[in-house]
Amino acid sequence: MKHLATTALLAALTTSAPASAQEERRSLPAASITAADIDAVSPALGKYTQDTVLGELWSRRDLSPRDRSVVTVAALIARNQTVELPFYFERALDNGVTAAELSEIVTHLAFYSGFPNAMSAVVVAKDVFARRGIGVDQLPPASPDLLPQDEAAEAAREKTVRDTVGSVSQGVVDYTDMLFDDVWQRPGLAPRDRSLVTVSALIVSGQSAQVTFHLNRAMDSGLTKAQASEMLTHLAFYGGWPNVFSVVPVVKEVLAKREG
Amino acid sequence: MKHLATTALLAALTTSAPASAQEERRSLPAASITAADIDAVSPALGKYTQDTVLGELWSRRDLSPRDRSVVTVAALIARNQTVELPFYFERALDNGVTAAELSEIVTHLAFYSGFPNAMSAVVVAKDVFARRGIGVDQLPPASPDLLPQDEAAEAAREKTVRDTVGSVSQGVVDYTDMLFDDVWQRPGLAPRDRSLVTVSALIVSGQSAQVTFHLNRAMDSGLTKAQASEMLTHLAFYGGWPNVFSVVPVVKEVLAKREG
Amino acid sequence: MKHLATTALLAALTTSAPASAQEERRSLPAASITAADIDAVSPALGKYTQDTVLGELWSRRDLSPRDRSVVTVAALIARNQTVELPFYFERALDNGVTAAELSEIVTHLAFYSGFPNAMSAVVVAKDVFARRGIGVDQLPPASPDLLPQDEAAEAAREKTVRDTVGSVSQGVVDYTDMLFDDVWQRPGLAPRDRSLVTVSALIVSGQSAQVTFHLNRAMDSGLTKAQASEMLTHLAFYGGWPNVFSVVPVVKEVLAKREG
Repeated sequence: MKHLATTALLAALTTSAPASAQEERRSLPAASITAADIDAVSPALGKYTQDTVLGELWSRRDLSPRDRSVVTVAALIARNQTVELPFYFERALDNGVTAAELSEIVTHLAFYSGFPNAMSAVVVAKDVFARRGIGVDQLPPASPDLLPQDEAAEAAREKTVRDTVGSVSQGVVDYTDMLFDDVWQRPGLAPRDRSLVTVSALIVSGQSAQVTFHLNRAMDSGLTKAQASEMLTHLAFYGGWPNVFSVVPVVKEVLAKREG
Repeated sequence: MKHLATTALLAALTTSAPASAQEERRSLPAASITAADIDAVSPALGKYTQDTVLGELWSRRDLSPRDRSVVTVAALIARNQTVELPFYFERALDNGVTAAELSEIVTHLAFYSGFPNAMSAVVVAKDVFARRGIGVDQLPPASPDLLPQDEAAEAAREKTVRDTVGSVSQGVVDYTDMLFDDVWQRPGLAPRDRSLVTVSALIVSGQSAQVTFHLNRAMDSGLTKAQASEMLTHLAFYGGWPNVFSVVPVVKEVLAKREG
Repeated sequence: MKHLATTALLAALTTSAPASAQEERRSLPAASITAADIDAVSPALGKYTQDTVLGELWSRRDLSPRDRSVVTVAALIARNQTVELPFYFERALDNGVTAAELSEIVTHLAFYSGFPNAMSAVVVAKDVFARRGIGVDQLPPASPDLLPQDEAAEAAREKTVRDTVGSVSQGVVDYTDMLFDDVWQRPGLAPRDRSLVTVSALIVSGQSAQVTFHLNRAMDSGLTKAQASEMLTHLAFYGGWPNVFSVVPVVKEVLAKREG
């Protein structure tokens, strides 16, 4: 019966919008799912969605609404969840994620979740951008000046990939160099956010094994332990409990090594 | 050449509807795929679908059509398979799964497959419910009286999760308590069915590692060995052979320990 | 900064269509995504799609455009990527994959990726076939004369499955016999292509463990090491980097054992 106490505790931390305002947000954009739709199938799911997720979870400390939007959009694209994507693209823009950052998130995930997932996101994003009057002038250019690299870290990464993958596929080695030398160094999305997107995508895709490298990279770029911890809480709801439980031992080991 | 003998054997167990009736069922609801659609792409796939799957598999002993519907709907929601979902929601209602149970299955899987998968299911289920005149009076309330818990088992579960997850994410620990104290104890779906849904979702999502706990829970709640075995046969067709082959060693170990 | 050299090197191998022709291909069929759509969300993604993927990747040596189409269609069906499927079904037909082969690929993946994924592919393929005037006369019959089996290899496979799965699910054993005795022996798709489809589907679904058996089978049927290597390069873009990195150690071991 611990959940009642938990709920009460968390509710105290929540700045909850009135139900009608939430419903209004929920019903934008047109093609999205309304609170009434959810209640017509499951009043319980309606309650969990409005109260527990949109109300309580999104208002918890340790991860800002802006970061939660980055994590959520990454999870949806990684899982090809187009039904919810319009709502969460709009919410991301409302929460301070810029159109330029969303543009980079889609591009970044083309590599981590496959180009077809990025294309599904394009179908949704182009309509959201059009509705908001977001033109190409607000988007990062195709070929910007790139951020400088940490040469030592990049040399180590290149050597690891060459040693691991080289004898199997030189093509994968070459395009991985492109991924790290070009995509990762684009200035339109901060390295810490790029890592947050990558880790979120890996977790909700059940790819725990590759979280070690990217979570370390995220924390090297400024992601705090409290934020990483709360990212897991958030992703339990958006990528399902099993994916989060699978990654817990991996995250625990990363944290232990960094603290030890 | 063993398949001919197998097919003959299984056909003898089958109560097959005439082809025209199957076609009719297949073509409901309007947006679904017809047998003619399948034949226009692959007459072989049409044969396997009508004869092997809808005819033979669904009529096999050891798992009732009602249980097969529970397993199938869980698999489709877990994999976000909206194209087939209208057909199988209808089939579930025809096979004796109640609207209240479907409502609970969607809610339960919000936690195990992520809220976005549940939302995709809502989009389909609301139309099926509307078409059948299923109103909110037939659905479980948002906050019912909960089933009593097995205090000892729950205390053990809480301790395990606290010990495993506590140092990584207190938020995950707290909401996992909510999941087990609240969602799992809702009376609208029998504990055995809730476990059957969970195990099915885990298997078709490739999450073998967490099947041990939930398959034991399912069998503690009344799932028989024969039913678990036949659930695997059924899921081979609905979640693909590789996911079933991956989980076989896990199931084997669970069965061995329970018998040993 | 290695990527510039790499890009230059690869560009030299590329027979790139003029941008306008690519845009035209890209905008067929009607429901598909145009280059303008991509640029409206991310000019960078537009560049990577047109130049790196459609231009450069598809023109690389070691895997023909025809084989790349087989691999791509398999990856899309395995991941239930219906948005991109019309474009790549059309491209496959343009690249010399026959309608009969596409028909068999859909049927084959019903077993490896689940019948619901095959049904989603049917929805797309039936429209592509209709638009091209491809009738049932161009499709393999439901029950053709089957290819002869390698009796020794098949007996070994049967024994392994019986020993591994028999005590857990006789149904899975029986239908696996059907899968290998019937589906795999259909003459409409060459064994080497059937294996290429299977391996591609396993990789993009994160099912590395079962790649060993099927990659060996593919190479026994004629897939070369260079083709396997380039398949990984191709799948990095279509199934995402993490799935390819996960399978690299498995592929490395298969290659080492075959060379050793």
